Amino acid sequence: MPKDMTETRDIFDRRESAARSYCRSMPALFTSARGSELTDAEGRSYIDFLAGCSSLNYGHNDPDMKAALVEYITADGIAHGLDLHTDAKGAFLAAFERHILAPRGMDHRVMFTGPTGANAVEAAMKIARKSTGRTNVIAFTNGFHGVTMGALAATGNGYHRGGAGMDASGVTRMPFDGYAEGVDSAALLDQMLSDPSGGIDAPAAILFETVQGEGGLNAASPDWVRAIAEVAKKHGALLIIDDIQAGVGRTGTFFSFEEMGVTPDIVTMAKSVSGFGLPMALVLVRPEHDVFGPAEHNGTFRGNTHAFVTARVAIEKFWADNAFQRQLADKAVMLTTALQEVAGLVPGAQLKGRGLMQGVDVISGALAADICARAYDKGLVIETSGNEDQVVKVLAPLTTSAETFRKGFNILLDATRDAMAGRNTLAAE
Amino acid sequence: MPKDMTETRDIFDRRESAARSYCRSMPALFTSARGSELTDAEGRSYIDFLAGCSSLNYGHNDPDMKAALVEYITADGIAHGLDLHTDAKGAFLAAFERHILAPRGMDHRVMFTGPTGANAVEAAMKIARKSTGRTNVIAFTNGFHGVTMGALAATGNGYHRGGAGMDASGVTRMPFDGYAEGVDSAALLDQMLSDPSGGIDAPAAILFETVQGEGGLNAASPDWVRAIAEVAKKHGALLIIDDIQAGVGRTGTFFSFEEMGVTPDIVTMAKSVSGFGLPMALVLVRPEHDVFGPAEHNGTFRGNTHAFVTARVAIEKFWADNAFQRQLADKAVMLTTALQEVAGLVPGAQLKGRGLMQGVDVISGALAADICARAYDKGLVIETSGNEDQVVKVLAPLTTSAETFRKGFNILLDATRDAMAGRNTLAAE
Amino acid sequence: MPKDMTETRDIFDRRESAARSYCRSMPALFTSARGSELTDAEGRSYIDFLAGCSSLNYGHNDPDMKAALVEYITADGIAHGLDLHTDAKGAFLAAFERHILAPRGMDHRVMFTGPTGANAVEAAMKIARKSTGRTNVIAFTNGFHGVTMGALAATGNGYHRGGAGMDASGVTRMPFDGYAEGVDSAALLDQMLSDPSGGIDAPAAILFETVQGEGGLNAASPDWVRAIAEVAKKHGALLIIDDIQAGVGRTGTFFSFEEMGVTPDIVTMAKSVSGFGLPMALVLVRPEHDVFGPAEHNGTFRGNTHAFVTARVAIEKFWADNAFQRQLADKAVMLTTALQEVAGLVPGAQLKGRGLMQGVDVISGALAADICARAYDKGLVIETSGNEDQVVKVLAPLTTSAETFRKGFNILLDATRDAMAGRNTLAAE
Amino acid sequence: MPKDMTETRDIFDRRESAARSYCRSMPALFTSARGSELTDAEGRSYIDFLAGCSSLNYGHNDPDMKAALVEYITADGIAHGLDLHTDAKGAFLAAFERHILAPRGMDHRVMFTGPTGANAVEAAMKIARKSTGRTNVIAFTNGFHGVTMGALAATGNGYHRGGAGMDASGVTRMPFDGYAEGVDSAALLDQMLSDPSGGIDAPAAILFETVQGEGGLNAASPDWVRAIAEVAKKHGALLIIDDIQAGVGRTGTFFSFEEMGVTPDIVTMAKSVSGFGLPMALVLVRPEHDVFGPAEHNGTFRGNTHAFVTARVAIEKFWADNAFQRQLADKAVMLTTALQEVAGLVPGAQLKGRGLMQGVDVISGALAADICARAYDKGLVIETSGNEDQVVKVLAPLTTSAETFRKGFNILLDATRDAMAGRNTLAAE
Repeated sequence: MPKDMTETRDIFDRRESAARSYCRSMPALFTSARGSELTDAEGRSYIDFLAGCSSLNYGHNDPDMKAALVEYITADGIAHGLDLHTDAKGAFLAAFERHILAPRGMDHRVMFTGPTGANAVEAAMKIARKSTGRTNVIAFTNGFHGVTMGALAATGNGYHRGGAGMDASGVTRMPFDGYAEGVDSAALLDQMLSDPSGGIDAPAAILFETVQGEGGLNAASPDWVRAIAEVAKKHGALLIIDDIQAGVGRTGTFFSFEEMGVTPDIVTMAKSVSGFGLPMALVLVRPEHDVFGPAEHNGTFRGNTHAFVTARVAIEKFWADNAFQRQLADKAVMLTTALQEVAGLVPGAQLKGRGLMQGVDVISGALAADICARAYDKGLVIETSGNEDQVVKVLAPLTTSAETFRKGFNILLDATRDAMAGRNTLAAE
Repeated sequence: MPKDMTETRDIFDRRESAARSYCRSMPALFTSARGSELTDAEGRSYIDFLAGCSSLNYGHNDPDMKAALVEYITADGIAHGLDLHTDAKGAFLAAFERHILAPRGMDHRVMFTGPTGANAVEAAMKIARKSTGRTNVIAFTNGFHGVTMGALAATGNGYHRGGAGMDASGVTRMPFDGYAEGVDSAALLDQMLSDPSGGIDAPAAILFETVQGEGGLNAASPDWVRAIAEVAKKHGALLIIDDIQAGVGRTGTFFSFEEMGVTPDIVTMAKSVSGFGLPMALVLVRPEHDVFGPAEHNGTFRGNTHAFVTARVAIEKFWADNAFQRQLADKAVMLTTALQEVAGLVPGAQLKGRGLMQGVDVISGALAADICARAYDKGLVIETSGNEDQVVKVLAPLTTSAETFRKGFNILLDATRDAMAGRNTLAAE
Repeated sequence: MPKDMTETRDIFDRRESAARSYCRSMPALFTSARGSELTDAEGRSYIDFLAGCSSLNYGHNDPDMKAALVEYITADGIAHGLDLHTDAKGAFLAAFERHILAPRGMDHRVMFTGPTGANAVEAAMKIARKSTGRTNVIAFTNGFHGVTMGALAATGNGYHRGGAGMDASGVTRMPFDGYAEGVDSAALLDQMLSDPSGGIDAPAAILFETVQGEGGLNAASPDWVRAIAEVAKKHGALLIIDDIQAGVGRTGTFFSFEEMGVTPDIVTMAKSVSGFGLPMALVLVRPEHDVFGPAEHNGTFRGNTHAFVTARVAIEKFWADNAFQRQLADKAVMLTTALQEVAGLVPGAQLKGRGLMQGVDVISGALAADICARAYDKGLVIETSGNEDQVVKVLAPLTTSAETFRKGFNILLDATRDAMAGRNTLAAE
Repeated sequence: MPKDMTETRDIFDRRESAARSYCRSMPALFTSARGSELTDAEGRSYIDFLAGCSSLNYGHNDPDMKAALVEYITADGIAHGLDLHTDAKGAFLAAFERHILAPRGMDHRVMFTGPTGANAVEAAMKIARKSTGRTNVIAFTNGFHGVTMGALAATGNGYHRGGAGMDASGVTRMPFDGYAEGVDSAALLDQMLSDPSGGIDAPAAILFETVQGEGGLNAASPDWVRAIAEVAKKHGALLIIDDIQAGVGRTGTFFSFEEMGVTPDIVTMAKSVSGFGLPMALVLVRPEHDVFGPAEHNGTFRGNTHAFVTARVAIEKFWADNAFQRQLADKAVMLTTALQEVAGLVPGAQLKGRGLMQGVDVISGALAADICARAYDKGLVIETSGNEDQVVKVLAPLTTSAETFRKGFNILLDATRDAMAGRNTLAAE
């Protein structure tokens, strides 16, 4: 390692908080990236099957977004505009309406929140509470919605909940679809809410991800999603779908719920909405629930203008017609096939997720970590998810070429084989 | 207005949430900006005395930051890197250590939180609670710390608190320095905490801004800040200074508390820390309180790499020596002088704040709004703050030239004169 | 009605709070009572199948308790002794140890709380939280534990929860045994608690009634109670059985859980523990969880000395040998038989509860209210319970003679027949 | 000590919870009491200057109440009647209206809560929240309102708050009258509530004792009480006066606030309201705030019929004319004079409280405990209060004869002298 790289690394040890995370298992110093590949300071390249946790659905540094952004900056475009009107925001909104909302018959308003998914979730929960005059939000096992206090209450993960140092409130937890053998959680929720002594306060909202990204790629069935939507309607609760990780094409359609026959009252978006990996988040809310007064929920960075520029390009480039969506369907099949091969190497393993958001539950968190570590050594950036980190999760850029996909899958297969061989060797000793 | 501008405007009415705010009183469609000037789609230019609520302390599109950012993007630098090591992050940390932390004898670790001030405050409160095993955070009248549930509990503003639709918890409110005639709130806090029946639970932290930006430019005296630091130490609470608006040179020094003889356990930063107006936030925490495990507080955008690039340039350009800080001292005097002239036009008006974060309390929120509206019409972007929005607040870029300052002040004087004339006319009728 | 009775009644209308309740459907002015009979000011007598909601398990004015109490008062015995040692308290404790605790192998300490069931529940929850350092208490659908804020959080009933005017916190609700078709709630609870992302905070306690008195006489199976005890143990939670209504012989044994093979960490008692209907409550707690410091949970009336006198007599009279318990077994059979007859009159009706705590679920709250109103008119005091008040509940004194039981049952049968006839007439019209 | 007394004592050690308290410093086994004297099992008598913490304002076993109670029991009067109408309750209400409410022009309704002061406070807080639709209750330093979760939130004492094992919520603490040098807490409260960014949520109620019984006999001035009543009215909050300890003549009038020119919206009563030391509590509430539905706040023992019998006698005997109140005025003067003598023995000591609720702040909790221990050894039951237990508090029965008062004072003087001598000896060594 060259001397200045060592120095650079030292600065992280010396000054960066212990909260840093991904860099621990993937310690390279990354310097550039393009499409589905990352390059580190030593010139080594990596295939990226993590994609910024689904924040880079169109890959790194898409040339069209890049060109538009450079042009915008060069021309002294507004970099920071609070929530003033800018041409960049106007153009994004127009494209979002034309190519996303209007074709799907959605009359939602767009609220630009602070540019993090957690902030969008906080805003969504606040809107639901303000709109209904109720407090309780129903959330689900293994749901992940962020770690600020409001959103954290809705997050199932105990490690993150523990970080708060205090009890969160205002949320009732229910089992997610398929969570508990034989439990129809939509029916159970309906029963408890219908019962005057069910002990669950009338809900402001029901909040969930259609595919639980951090929770282990648990995909809700369309039937369950529809049943939950019915429960929400019946009990006067808003239906909030958190599409932060599963949205923007990840499951094969722009929204993860498009083909389920439900219209959420609120949708939260972040991660890939800017297209370029820039911080941006938004809340879609039906007009009748657009109840905040001016700046009632505010935040200095609630309009990241650079992100509007790239987000507009992304929408115009990928969602103006059906071509991209058709490619996604093909790639999802390819992904399923490849992951079945991986799963075949691990007794008991099973596929999770749907669309371009699939993975393999290898039962053991230690095994999943071993597979990912070996993959990293071979040049593949890939991560785990799940309540025991037992799911090897593929979140490749949606734009990944078939060839790169194949290279990545081969590394994953090799890594899995090696990990299993290591296990068997250990077991035999 | 050209036709396409009307169309652009329509999209905001049609699709942007009612939560939009600044654009209501300043409805121009902004298209570019440089230094202390904004330009709208009709080619009109405005002097900017708002500076993105102090997020643009170095003005718009600083040429050096801009050049570095364009170069970085052009070279396919990492745009989104989760919390992986990147050269951009390393270089920022090195510069921040060398020019900011080390010269001030600060051993703090840097935690990159989700890129909003609220997220930094949430992290700070969580750290204090986890580190102390206590829940209660002491916050103050007119403090503003963000609108996500954890931070909102610490925010005094009732309008924003109401947006939550539920009670916030975990915070005890005390009067800020000088809030109540004859009340020494540091002494009162000490008395109540020392009293076994004082009824205030042992605090995890005491949290405040040295100058309350949204709360009306209330500047705490160094004596009070030291007294509060003593109270925190005596009662085992962490001292958290929220320097999100007052930091990064706004009060005349990099940190707002530099010359007060206190070392906060935690400092929260956001707004101008990126230098360019890009979303970025961080928490400085003393090593003994750097208690989060890996990703225990996480967030997809917790490393905005573009912001690291501009933040590094900002630090190297403005804080490598004392030249900039000396200029700030001169400009602060100039600001005080000009604002005294404004205050002289309004009977009973008084100056608020310190450094480059000053304003005039004109007693009436309606008058302050009138002054700002007239100033806007004359080409000056300026806003109010305070519990009744009664303070006309100057948050000009710190880099504003004397000439531009003078032009802005003249507009402000004219606007104030006109507003007072309008008032007198009304009164005479 | 004699004139002075009218006047007496006026005072209730004029001055008693609208919160008054039983007197609305049973408006007689009661003046005396003995055994299982009440007498009103007009000399009318009523058979009592309510028994002060199971607070008069030995009937009204038991002659032995009465004699002892009159003797005690006459001799200037201590009426109010805070928690000082009194001979009355000592004698109660000795009898309770000798005849109740020791024979059942229970090493529990006795804590005298404020003399209400709710206060005992509050103390129990506090003990569990203090002892474990955790907050969360698991409670169940249709559980009823009182209406003070701590206990109310554990109470499922939405009408009572609404009375708080604020959200209760610190409790997670789960389905009770048999609540939801096909849901094994002990297994579901175990799964959610075992799952690091199950989203239920580690519990301080699991709290329930073995037969839900207010909730509709839902009787938990011994298997479920044992499974819950296992879950509590596995997850470090205290097992709290609320025996306030089901205890003191009501289910056929002194404690309702005696024959289930579990030893609760904490038992709450009130209602019939004084034997005479006097306010008295206590918490039984295993020595290792007897963690309160002196007066840490206190209350002026935490030793009701008059109640100690009668409670001692009750224990010595009824629990010194097995005779009473054997009678209860016979009476329970008689009760079941009689209620089957009642149930036979109402299509779809089913028996609920066990021991001397049984009733008939007549499906409709309106029908149950009609039956009870008609019974009252015929001289039987009886009430409903259940989430829809659909269960006609028999809580006769345990000492009720077979003859009085039979008279009461006959009234109940008549009332049910009349109510059904009324319904059929209505339906036919 | 006779053998059976030792055995009796053993039962307390063996089986009573560690939460027991008064019996630790006053370990006698009490067996009877009359007027202002207690007698223990060894025949020793004690003057009672504690009076069940003001629950025995008419002394022990008042002969008239005793006779009425024995007669009632003997005649098989209702002992337990839920909230059914009974002749005993009707007669109490009539007497309470005639002699207490009507002469004072109070139109309040009477709500019988569970028979503990804490339960009355819980009910009062719930009423205020339900009636106003707000959550926040303002309470004060050193206030004591009980230890169930709702009431505990309003209690300042940290030891008791700690017993909850979780954070209480819904209450904002303010300094009591005279608490902090130079702080006008009514004005401060008004300022913070009037300020849109004061950070105190709009209050449902303001709750306090006019003399803080447990908090150290801090007596609020009539001016402050009126100012607080104004603040409550101005901000739409209910005024709740907790008269549990200070009421029923303790301060010289039936209610402690009678001569202050305020009409509380809600008054809580317990302790001496039964007259005989029997558990009884009630809430007085103005008709417009009598908002509970039937049984919305309930409790099995919410009508303690025995207590109604004695309470009626107490009111008719002591409050039918002004004679008793005039005696109280004389006794208060006597008490002040005597306590001045005590205070004269301790440098820096000062008198606290008013009426028959006075004490001496001897500055040190250790000294106060020493004085009380020595007094107990000499045959006087007396206790401390205050945040450091530094106040020797006299709560003698109001009916105590001048002679018994004098005997008690002499013991107290001797005990104080001895304690001071002991201190001086220690200091001299």
